Amino acid sequence: MSVNVDADYLDQVQWDARGLVPVIAQEIDTGLVLMMAWMNREALLQTIVKGQAVYWSRSRQQLWHKGETSGHWQQVEAIFLDCDGDTLLLQVRQIGGIACHTGRPACFFRKFKEDRWLDIVTGSPNIASLPFSK
Amino acid sequence: MSVNVDADYLDQVQWDARGLVPVIAQEIDTGLVLMMAWMNREALLQTIVKGQAVYWSRSRQQLWHKGETSGHWQQVEAIFLDCDGDTLLLQVRQIGGIACHTGRPACFFRKFKEDRWLDIVTGSPNIASLPFSK
Repeated sequence: MSVNVDADYLDQVQWDARGLVPVIAQEIDTGLVLMMAWMNREALLQTIVKGQAVYWSRSRQQLWHKGETSGHWQQVEAIFLDCDGDTLLLQVRQIGGIACHTGRPACFFRKFKEDRWLDIVTGSPNIASLPFSK
Repeated sequence: MSVNVDADYLDQVQWDARGLVPVIAQEIDTGLVLMMAWMNREALLQTIVKGQAVYWSRSRQQLWHKGETSGHWQQVEAIFLDCDGDTLLLQVRQIGGIACHTGRPACFFRKFKEDRWLDIVTGSPNIASLPFSK
């Protein structure tokens, strides 16, 4: 994919005061929402160049090529910008089926029930049953 | 649903310096990612009490009961907290099938293609074809 570093598409993103935007990662085949992370301009550019998700780690204050330690890369199939231009959605194929650093398929494993957050057990994501709806 | 205003579950959310967390809204039946918005403690509490999404509008600096002008309420079916406790995922039924203020089903209608964000045409969301993957 050809990439223009000075491209307008980077300017069309409404970066916040820190130069970041929130990014939602979704498994393309199942619709499972995997995680939320952040990108700066360089992270979005590298994501486009590599075809794999590269985020900005706010805790480490550095670029974070997701999977660089775990091997759980995210192969990017599509990138969307929302109506306000201030949020990105990545549709990915999650290598290894694990997006969360806890070893779970996705990060949203605590479900609100009776005034508590309860851990849920997720099976392998599949189209027929969005795991988080159970 | 009974609600405890001083409940621990509110304290378990990692509110940012502004007292906010990002919230992803997803159509429960299709997996379609509808939008991203923000909540403060009161918004989350009202969401739980009403069973409909109530966000915090950063531009208007006030609670925003989604649908209050459009009638496009979001019926909340499930609420999830992520591993770090700093992002929420709502699974909803989007009344009217329109989540975006532009009249589209969802806010993520600009797809990156050949160095540009191109508007995509989305059909009615359905399980068989996640609209945004086309």
